[in-house]
Amino acid sequence: MVRAIMHGCNGKMGRVITGLISEDEGIRIVAGVDTYTAVPNEYPVFDSIEKCDVEADVVIDFSNASAVDGLLSYCRARKLPVVLCTTGLSEAQLAEVEDAAKETAVLKSANMSLGINLLLKLLQDAAKVLGPAGYDIELVERHHNQKVDAPSGTAIALADSVNEALDHQYTYVYDRSQVRQKRDKKEIGISAVRGGTIVGDHEVIFAGTDEVIEFRHTAYSKSVFGKGAVEAAKFLAGKPAGRYDMSDVIQL
Amino acid sequence: MVRAIMHGCNGKMGRVITGLISEDEGIRIVAGVDTYTAVPNEYPVFDSIEKCDVEADVVIDFSNASAVDGLLSYCRARKLPVVLCTTGLSEAQLAEVEDAAKETAVLKSANMSLGINLLLKLLQDAAKVLGPAGYDIELVERHHNQKVDAPSGTAIALADSVNEALDHQYTYVYDRSQVRQKRDKKEIGISAVRGGTIVGDHEVIFAGTDEVIEFRHTAYSKSVFGKGAVEAAKFLAGKPAGRYDMSDVIQL
Amino acid sequence: MVRAIMHGCNGKMGRVITGLISEDEGIRIVAGVDTYTAVPNEYPVFDSIEKCDVEADVVIDFSNASAVDGLLSYCRARKLPVVLCTTGLSEAQLAEVEDAAKETAVLKSANMSLGINLLLKLLQDAAKVLGPAGYDIELVERHHNQKVDAPSGTAIALADSVNEALDHQYTYVYDRSQVRQKRDKKEIGISAVRGGTIVGDHEVIFAGTDEVIEFRHTAYSKSVFGKGAVEAAKFLAGKPAGRYDMSDVIQL
Amino acid sequence: MVRAIMHGCNGKMGRVITGLISEDEGIRIVAGVDTYTAVPNEYPVFDSIEKCDVEADVVIDFSNASAVDGLLSYCRARKLPVVLCTTGLSEAQLAEVEDAAKETAVLKSANMSLGINLLLKLLQDAAKVLGPAGYDIELVERHHNQKVDAPSGTAIALADSVNEALDHQYTYVYDRSQVRQKRDKKEIGISAVRGGTIVGDHEVIFAGTDEVIEFRHTAYSKSVFGKGAVEAAKFLAGKPAGRYDMSDVIQL
Repeated sequence: MVRAIMHGCNGKMGRVITGLISEDEGIRIVAGVDTYTAVPNEYPVFDSIEKCDVEADVVIDFSNASAVDGLLSYCRARKLPVVLCTTGLSEAQLAEVEDAAKETAVLKSANMSLGINLLLKLLQDAAKVLGPAGYDIELVERHHNQKVDAPSGTAIALADSVNEALDHQYTYVYDRSQVRQKRDKKEIGISAVRGGTIVGDHEVIFAGTDEVIEFRHTAYSKSVFGKGAVEAAKFLAGKPAGRYDMSDVIQL
Repeated sequence: MVRAIMHGCNGKMGRVITGLISEDEGIRIVAGVDTYTAVPNEYPVFDSIEKCDVEADVVIDFSNASAVDGLLSYCRARKLPVVLCTTGLSEAQLAEVEDAAKETAVLKSANMSLGINLLLKLLQDAAKVLGPAGYDIELVERHHNQKVDAPSGTAIALADSVNEALDHQYTYVYDRSQVRQKRDKKEIGISAVRGGTIVGDHEVIFAGTDEVIEFRHTAYSKSVFGKGAVEAAKFLAGKPAGRYDMSDVIQL
Repeated sequence: MVRAIMHGCNGKMGRVITGLISEDEGIRIVAGVDTYTAVPNEYPVFDSIEKCDVEADVVIDFSNASAVDGLLSYCRARKLPVVLCTTGLSEAQLAEVEDAAKETAVLKSANMSLGINLLLKLLQDAAKVLGPAGYDIELVERHHNQKVDAPSGTAIALADSVNEALDHQYTYVYDRSQVRQKRDKKEIGISAVRGGTIVGDHEVIFAGTDEVIEFRHTAYSKSVFGKGAVEAAKFLAGKPAGRYDMSDVIQL
Repeated sequence: MVRAIMHGCNGKMGRVITGLISEDEGIRIVAGVDTYTAVPNEYPVFDSIEKCDVEADVVIDFSNASAVDGLLSYCRARKLPVVLCTTGLSEAQLAEVEDAAKETAVLKSANMSLGINLLLKLLQDAAKVLGPAGYDIELVERHHNQKVDAPSGTAIALADSVNEALDHQYTYVYDRSQVRQKRDKKEIGISAVRGGTIVGDHEVIFAGTDEVIEFRHTAYSKSVFGKGAVEAAKFLAGKPAGRYDMSDVIQL
């Protein structure tokens, strides 16, 4: 069973991951690290990673940028694999991540959701079959009413993944109301729906002759990133030094 | 049981309606009219309405504009209710329709689908409850890749119906990719998906706090208009002179 | 602006409702009640309702059964309307609720979601139009993998609502794999999907000739009940004594 | 450009395929075969395959069982690849198919839809990633109200495909209303919805922690089988002798 250190164990995502791991027979948390140590945990908690002397196979990190430097030093020194989920790292820190990856296994990904990362792969297979067969490709995403950008970064990533599989021959269309013309074969329509508190829905549509094939991902909360981190940790334990991302976890 | 004359009985929609009525215990076809009379029918067929001497309660018309003048004269003379589904009438003919409605019951509607007409009503009820409660309203329609206009006329009709229920306070937004700002409460986003041979899907979304309510209509073929015409005929038989439309059929 | 007392203000639902009301211009919280008073609130908090001397128009209650007796006495004495969302009341308490409703307005509902209560109404209208027109009615619900009962109580409530509108002529079918026969016109198929942490999806399908009309409700968290409670409070303020439920809030 | 003979060119599927190929730049019909030759075609039509002396690269067959013997002899003699879509073959004929495959390329598949065959593959990849990660798997299919069997053969094929990828450890559950217990991890729930004229919808759901991934296939008419046959013909032209099926067409 994989032994994990939860770095940032008392933050929101740390609590989510603690819950997920408690129901997973393939991994357990042997220690936590958090500056906030007032609450009781099911495992020993240290107020900094340097003080943690518990033997482990992997670290899962959902902390904050200021804690990442110490974490990377710790993992390099021990050749301890680390799943790095903290965002907002500086340029200097990102360079440090690459450096650390020369000495231990480091996994870092733009989107930690297992489902989205799986779709990024499967959509390429679908596109290679259905694109040349003349199926039209469209994408609809939905997010909450506070989001200022449209379409979402994930929607663009999904479209890019499809387009890459089709030799980058497609252009993206965001609005059809201003022209009066038929759809071009080599376009991907991308629509952005905004409303309420929708966490994030993404739907990719392949429409052919009297046939529609759809791939849909629905997130109900940010916990989906926690689930991806747990799978990443189980994958990364025991791996040699190097830079990994979620696509490595989804080896088909 | 309602006795119907099928005007345009050997056209595509005439055949669809003949099939639908054969499975409906509340109505039967007692005569057909079509210039093309070479095929055998289950009922007597006349090559013009003037020659039809069969007693009936209602006429269903899916013919062509040139046959409508004779039909209206026939129905006026006999006070025979008529469901008029032929499109492309001239201004003069439309005036004639209004005239005829002074002497017999005439039903004519922009969209004959029972489902769409029902939604036009129910969406007003939903909007009156959910709009003031702060739910965001969005609409996504899907049509085939040969359609040149976007959004569809039906999508606009659905949005207008919602907007009417909300005192016309909302504006329509077709593209969110060109601005970087939060959604305004008083907007209805309308997205148009185009692909394959999709006959017509319409989805109206009310998104609130951790809750989404959706109304969806899917057409699998143009037969949906035939079904609406049959229900309209059953409704119209026996009705007094006047102008009717599909909203009358859907009396709640 | 409606002035509300939040009874159970520091519980999970109390926090949710406090957040919802802070963004609502039609209502504000003037006082809270909770046995746990250690956290700072935006409004004065009392450790029991008896101590609350703030003038208000309505009480929203998400507390626990043991606190309900005191609450009912308080509201009766002051003719103060109360939205009662606490569940698990005893027979004696339920009788007390009916008694209190003789002297003040009391709203209590099996399901506080605005969306579900709206659908309960709209589905009756849809059924009255589409049932007699021969559309088949089916229901699919989805819930998390820890739920032991199937189908859900809400699914049954939705089916019952449809069936009531159709003079209770329909029977419910939960499994079609054991027989080899066509669907009966007078049945409502009800399917239960179980998986992951799905909070609660309900989909009612009316399927006709080449046409499908769907009504879908998706809950993303239990906050949907909070939203319904806030709307109920705005509705109930100023109402005369009597028993109310969510269907009164959704006056069409 | 691939030159095809359309065997059964004046049947319903023959007409569909003629239409599809007329819009496809990679293939054209050089001759048709049909016992009914009264209608004008865009290509020469023979009343039996033996009389057809036009050079071609592949035959597409949507005829009837009685015409298949002659077709197989013809294709063997000329080493002409054949996409065999006629159903209801006798045991003797099925043996003949295997024999013919020793001398020419023969493609025959239980389901000719490109979309379904693609999903059969992609679902295996999804299952291998999401199954071990603890996602629950459910399947919902929808068909018209005249269908006597449930669940559909395609639904079973999809479930079998998923189960094969998971070492056949899962059992299928068709009804949850008769027990009061939590879902078992190693089950696949299969629900069958019946209504109207729905041609065939299949939805496979992977539900995890706060995340749902769905794969959905919608058929709008039987034309989807025609589209698959055309792609199969383009694939099969020039291939060596052997037995092929649609999974070969979808080489990833």
